[in-house]
Amino acid sequence: MEYQAINFSEKLGKFSDQWQARVVAEMNDYQFKLVKIQGEFVWHEHDDTDEVFIVLEGKMVIEFRNGRVEMKTGEMFVIPKKVEHKPIAENECKILLVEPRGVVNTGDSGGELTAENDVWI
Amino acid sequence: MEYQAINFSEKLGKFSDQWQARVVAEMNDYQFKLVKIQGEFVWHEHDDTDEVFIVLEGKMVIEFRNGRVEMKTGEMFVIPKKVEHKPIAENECKILLVEPRGVVNTGDSGGELTAENDVWI
Repeated sequence: MEYQAINFSEKLGKFSDQWQARVVAEMNDYQFKLVKIQGEFVWHEHDDTDEVFIVLEGKMVIEFRNGRVEMKTGEMFVIPKKVEHKPIAENECKILLVEPRGVVNTGDSGGELTAENDVWI
Repeated sequence: MEYQAINFSEKLGKFSDQWQARVVAEMNDYQFKLVKIQGEFVWHEHDDTDEVFIVLEGKMVIEFRNGRVEMKTGEMFVIPKKVEHKPIAENECKILLVEPRGVVNTGDSGGELTAENDVWI
């Protein structure tokens, strides 16, 4: 049997809305999600889990209350749990997120950018 | 404070041995590891966890007892726990692995390709 790998470019070609992550895979109780971002997200934190950002294409910044990290294609960063952060991208940036199943994108902050969870593509 | 992202190319430039994964990040109790592979690995399985392969550069094949998956740059695959598999790469392939801290690369199979664990770079 010929199994199929998950191709990030092919999956990214299937949607165009921003800030709405799509799940592409699960490993144990963790999910791998693709998301396109542009503009400024809301300040938020995740109380129960770290969160991984991997930049697949583009540039972005994650602001913290005490600093920032710049990220570009081929780079990753782990945001520790309970640390407030705000993702920003001047131009559209394509990202792979890794976090436990059930994590809400806006953490405890809510608001209009809160996305539907567990949307597969 | 200016935090530094983890740059995969920069980290991959710091080692040349094959089949010896280097940890570059931890998220909760999971590790992100870079590894360079070439040739055929041993058949093995992980009884307690799924395992994620993300190809950063090159091509590889993962053989299963009932089939195979071909993977290239920008593709990922989740190997379910308890599923026997054998990674193969004709030419050197550079991979990002995601799995829980403490997973042994050869699973229960052992042998000379068993690598030291928890080696950071």
